Amino acid sequence: MGVVVDGCPPGLELSDADVQRELDKRRPAVGSIFTPRREEDKVEFFSGVFKGQTTGAPLCMLVWNREVDSRPYEEIRWTPRPGHADYPARIRYKGFNDYRGGGRFSGRLTAAYVMAGAVAKRLLEGLGIEVLAHVVQINRIEVKALSVEEIRTHVYSNPMRCADGNVARLMEQVVQDARNAGDSVGGVVEGRILNVPPGIGQPIFDFLDADLAKALFTIPAVKGVEFGAGFKVARLMGSQNNDAYAMKDGQVLTLTNNSGGVLGGLSTGMPITFRVAFKPTPSISKPQQTVDVKTLVDTKIEVKGRHDACIVPRAVPVVESMAAITVVDHLLAAGFL
Amino acid sequence: MGVVVDGCPPGLELSDADVQRELDKRRPAVGSIFTPRREEDKVEFFSGVFKGQTTGAPLCMLVWNREVDSRPYEEIRWTPRPGHADYPARIRYKGFNDYRGGGRFSGRLTAAYVMAGAVAKRLLEGLGIEVLAHVVQINRIEVKALSVEEIRTHVYSNPMRCADGNVARLMEQVVQDARNAGDSVGGVVEGRILNVPPGIGQPIFDFLDADLAKALFTIPAVKGVEFGAGFKVARLMGSQNNDAYAMKDGQVLTLTNNSGGVLGGLSTGMPITFRVAFKPTPSISKPQQTVDVKTLVDTKIEVKGRHDACIVPRAVPVVESMAAITVVDHLLAAGFL
Amino acid sequence: MGVVVDGCPPGLELSDADVQRELDKRRPAVGSIFTPRREEDKVEFFSGVFKGQTTGAPLCMLVWNREVDSRPYEEIRWTPRPGHADYPARIRYKGFNDYRGGGRFSGRLTAAYVMAGAVAKRLLEGLGIEVLAHVVQINRIEVKALSVEEIRTHVYSNPMRCADGNVARLMEQVVQDARNAGDSVGGVVEGRILNVPPGIGQPIFDFLDADLAKALFTIPAVKGVEFGAGFKVARLMGSQNNDAYAMKDGQVLTLTNNSGGVLGGLSTGMPITFRVAFKPTPSISKPQQTVDVKTLVDTKIEVKGRHDACIVPRAVPVVESMAAITVVDHLLAAGFL
Amino acid sequence: MGVVVDGCPPGLELSDADVQRELDKRRPAVGSIFTPRREEDKVEFFSGVFKGQTTGAPLCMLVWNREVDSRPYEEIRWTPRPGHADYPARIRYKGFNDYRGGGRFSGRLTAAYVMAGAVAKRLLEGLGIEVLAHVVQINRIEVKALSVEEIRTHVYSNPMRCADGNVARLMEQVVQDARNAGDSVGGVVEGRILNVPPGIGQPIFDFLDADLAKALFTIPAVKGVEFGAGFKVARLMGSQNNDAYAMKDGQVLTLTNNSGGVLGGLSTGMPITFRVAFKPTPSISKPQQTVDVKTLVDTKIEVKGRHDACIVPRAVPVVESMAAITVVDHLLAAGFL
Repeated sequence: MGVVVDGCPPGLELSDADVQRELDKRRPAVGSIFTPRREEDKVEFFSGVFKGQTTGAPLCMLVWNREVDSRPYEEIRWTPRPGHADYPARIRYKGFNDYRGGGRFSGRLTAAYVMAGAVAKRLLEGLGIEVLAHVVQINRIEVKALSVEEIRTHVYSNPMRCADGNVARLMEQVVQDARNAGDSVGGVVEGRILNVPPGIGQPIFDFLDADLAKALFTIPAVKGVEFGAGFKVARLMGSQNNDAYAMKDGQVLTLTNNSGGVLGGLSTGMPITFRVAFKPTPSISKPQQTVDVKTLVDTKIEVKGRHDACIVPRAVPVVESMAAITVVDHLLAAGFL
Repeated sequence: MGVVVDGCPPGLELSDADVQRELDKRRPAVGSIFTPRREEDKVEFFSGVFKGQTTGAPLCMLVWNREVDSRPYEEIRWTPRPGHADYPARIRYKGFNDYRGGGRFSGRLTAAYVMAGAVAKRLLEGLGIEVLAHVVQINRIEVKALSVEEIRTHVYSNPMRCADGNVARLMEQVVQDARNAGDSVGGVVEGRILNVPPGIGQPIFDFLDADLAKALFTIPAVKGVEFGAGFKVARLMGSQNNDAYAMKDGQVLTLTNNSGGVLGGLSTGMPITFRVAFKPTPSISKPQQTVDVKTLVDTKIEVKGRHDACIVPRAVPVVESMAAITVVDHLLAAGFL
Repeated sequence: MGVVVDGCPPGLELSDADVQRELDKRRPAVGSIFTPRREEDKVEFFSGVFKGQTTGAPLCMLVWNREVDSRPYEEIRWTPRPGHADYPARIRYKGFNDYRGGGRFSGRLTAAYVMAGAVAKRLLEGLGIEVLAHVVQINRIEVKALSVEEIRTHVYSNPMRCADGNVARLMEQVVQDARNAGDSVGGVVEGRILNVPPGIGQPIFDFLDADLAKALFTIPAVKGVEFGAGFKVARLMGSQNNDAYAMKDGQVLTLTNNSGGVLGGLSTGMPITFRVAFKPTPSISKPQQTVDVKTLVDTKIEVKGRHDACIVPRAVPVVESMAAITVVDHLLAAGFL
Repeated sequence: MGVVVDGCPPGLELSDADVQRELDKRRPAVGSIFTPRREEDKVEFFSGVFKGQTTGAPLCMLVWNREVDSRPYEEIRWTPRPGHADYPARIRYKGFNDYRGGGRFSGRLTAAYVMAGAVAKRLLEGLGIEVLAHVVQINRIEVKALSVEEIRTHVYSNPMRCADGNVARLMEQVVQDARNAGDSVGGVVEGRILNVPPGIGQPIFDFLDADLAKALFTIPAVKGVEFGAGFKVARLMGSQNNDAYAMKDGQVLTLTNNSGGVLGGLSTGMPITFRVAFKPTPSISKPQQTVDVKTLVDTKIEVKGRHDACIVPRAVPVVESMAAITVVDHLLAAGFL
């Protein structure tokens, strides 16, 4: 599985390790409730780097799929798994799609997002722009507001990718319970992009927030995206929601950030904040009702194989990646890179 | 103000009236709490229609801005209005942007979205695809679940574009109260797209839901978009959230529609359902804190002019339009048009 | 007829006169053998300029078609004119295309190219980049090599847009003879783009010369495009054709310019030189054989109306415009604008 | 070196052999005057084919570069080779480009074009559309007009890819002479696309001929492209050049094909014919004048390594590929695939 990144400026110092570090964030924590597959996701560069620096040519990166046993997936050819793309994919591709493991609809493809995101993050580093994401909700367990410093320091210190260790343990228990019940749980990831200069975005056709939303909805299992105060704005008065401007240290800032750092599709210079809702993993071991698409009769399916009872923690570096890629695209368009 | 629609297939019967009907939906209801401007938004075709049918050439449509007094806007040149794009737009365009009325960041531009949407709706009609939207929440007033038939029949029968007349009156009172207080309120619009065939969408780079989200976030004041169960999925178990397949009348359907009609970026054939959060109108008459960007000192602003205390009802045809345009794009790509 | 130019940077000084000057170059010279239509092609701005400067919003410009008598064109609905796009356009648009005057396949649309080109030229001016074009061949009359100074000074000083006045008079006679015979003639336009910095272009998918060729082939009646030595390279030895590098005034230059200023899709810093072949005007008054597409029987057509016996001189500002637009696109991508 | 082909419809039967056959056409004929490198260009599929048929997912194909000795190329880092892209590439990529073998400006990259072209040809086969190309000129040796049948049968029967065997031997001698002299020669390739339905093309922004020209200019060493009568149209009268319509076997045809099968950017239904001028190989062993870009002083370079004295024959399948890819793109847009 691979990815081709075109448009990366020449001269960026980039090594396998830069990409591997990000890929490793996506792997389930060792010894955790998350059962790792054998996939080691070791990145291999095919083009675009020469003497440790990008050349300006497309970067082609691959990880190899070592797990070759596709038998557990043969069953899903005719009995689409509820919550997966099996059924619409079959129609979209007239039955010719590679159905094994969900094919190109597999969450596994997010490894490609992360490889591309690693390049984007390296570019943002040079501009002092930072992308953070962390798990703020798993099922009914929610975390309180955290500082940037707390998130930055703790997010990758536990298997739940939740920056509050105590809450993380509660979340882990919820996942364990779901797993024991042959079920799964969803959650919410919060993201923040720090130090984006104001005025970034392309109206009307490429609003910054619209492009971020598009990128985030391209992550499998995402069902909602909101910026700043998000859906809560529906209940706020204009006088509560408007972010007043004020001078601070010679900078024009806003005293609140209900806008989430975007107004009219343009960055305001404040942190870009957003929240992303992930549905529970559709692969559960409980029997489910489905249809045999060959005979067109109702039937049952039990999804086999090793599946995470919660994929939200593994989505954290994916969210970071999609945000980083989108911001880089807009910075390139604005001449910052 | 105008719009150019390229790619419309030739031979579609299209009249000024088809577009005017949609534009009129966007005008504030006469005699309502919404103070209409003098803008009559009368559409004029410049190209693309010949003998009552589209030619395949780009459709250029315009409405004229009759309201020429731009004095109330001169003030905002140097003192950006909180919640508006004035400040980032100034930076984005290096001070050369046309700041009058928010320029191209004005909600008025959504008239162009509606003109384009009118063409998209005509194309969808021919395929039996219907797009509905209605107001489901204004501030704290929420409407109960409504049937398609109720929405279709009642949404445009009151100024609030809420298909439940009793709730609409409560919403109207909330808007009136906000207006009296020199303040404003936000809300939520729900959308449904009926009869989209399964398998529509373009992975990885153009998921149907990702493109819908991008289109919806391109409407000014939108801060959140969710599909199906949306943010609620975070609290559901996999066994609750998965939509089981079943045969019904010879069709493969799902018994629930928590996915909102999209899986893996592809339509499932079920209704596509989504919710869009709108912030309260940023233009309020209460004094607000801002910054004089010329002198870089804190100051106050009182936004003058006629402004709606709630723009959510007027957003209903805009939501319909953006959804219709996005679906048409995908149907064209899939060879359905 | 109009054009929308998006992506123009804000702050460019731009007036109606800047665009009108270019449009006027496209009008047939007064009192010449070229019979002007009544079209005055007076540009009107609809958006994008505020206080004499571009705002960063799309520039919409229109000229009005005053000549409303479309009767001479009704005939071509069923009997396609040889050399025109009538027949393939009919099929492409399933008979719904606006056939009057060739519709959107009319050479008249090049007025839109020139309006957009006027903006591009203003942007290039600021970078010291100049685009020149001139007629170098009409039928069998060819002009000798001319200096940049000669072209710049004389190209618009005669109706033939040929920078050598004596040759221009011979060309004019050729056109007059063709006109008298109810026939038409073609020719070649040469273009030069001066002072493009080296390294401009986007391999693999947007070579600078490939994009220039695409833009030039988008001018109706163009049948050939070549750069530098062009088709003559087929007869040169490598040692003759290669442009040797040498230092001159501290700059890396080439001693010859057979490459026409482009190598590997990138500008070399030398003048970009190209030649464009135009076919004779397909509208001739001589009777021609065609087919009645309704009855599918062979028939004859005599094309009526006022038609130029040679459109090559009028194509000169169009060639300049398409070259200017393409270079601006690449300079924007390269961060020069 | 690889290529990713996205957008290929699912269900196309496609094997390694289909692609290998095309790649092999690009290899120098064994035992000919063309000295083959050791590259075997053996295609390897990474994605997009499952059980012998395309899945609708992107097709990723690679050939490995076995020739690892990049020493002969180290010299060109500082002394750009005349006629190559070394100098502008250096500037474009700020010195970070991989200069070995010309990097991504190497003619070797056309193997990727051919891999993609092989897929396009398979798609065209299903529609009965055929793409042919052959060498019609090497230096001063030109071939007479040939029938489609002659081209189809003989083009790949000799190393020169010239369908007239006698002329091919003359051409071969010219190449041999150039090689002996440490020099190189150019030529012209003619292309024909048969059975394209009328009305294919996208005005204004994607004329069929404009897109073909862009694709052909993307082949390294191309300096001219013309359709139908090409540059000769400049000397024709309108009455000579216009292709008269006539009914034949119930079809609307033209009696001549000076237009080369394209009018107004749309296919006419007649064969699409074009000619492409290739410059002589810039790599010659004769000493050439260049500049040391580090010290900025004039110097000499002798290009080492094995180089073809003529690359025109090897360009034949590349021309076919670029034509096939462009036509497939337009057929996809028109709903034919």
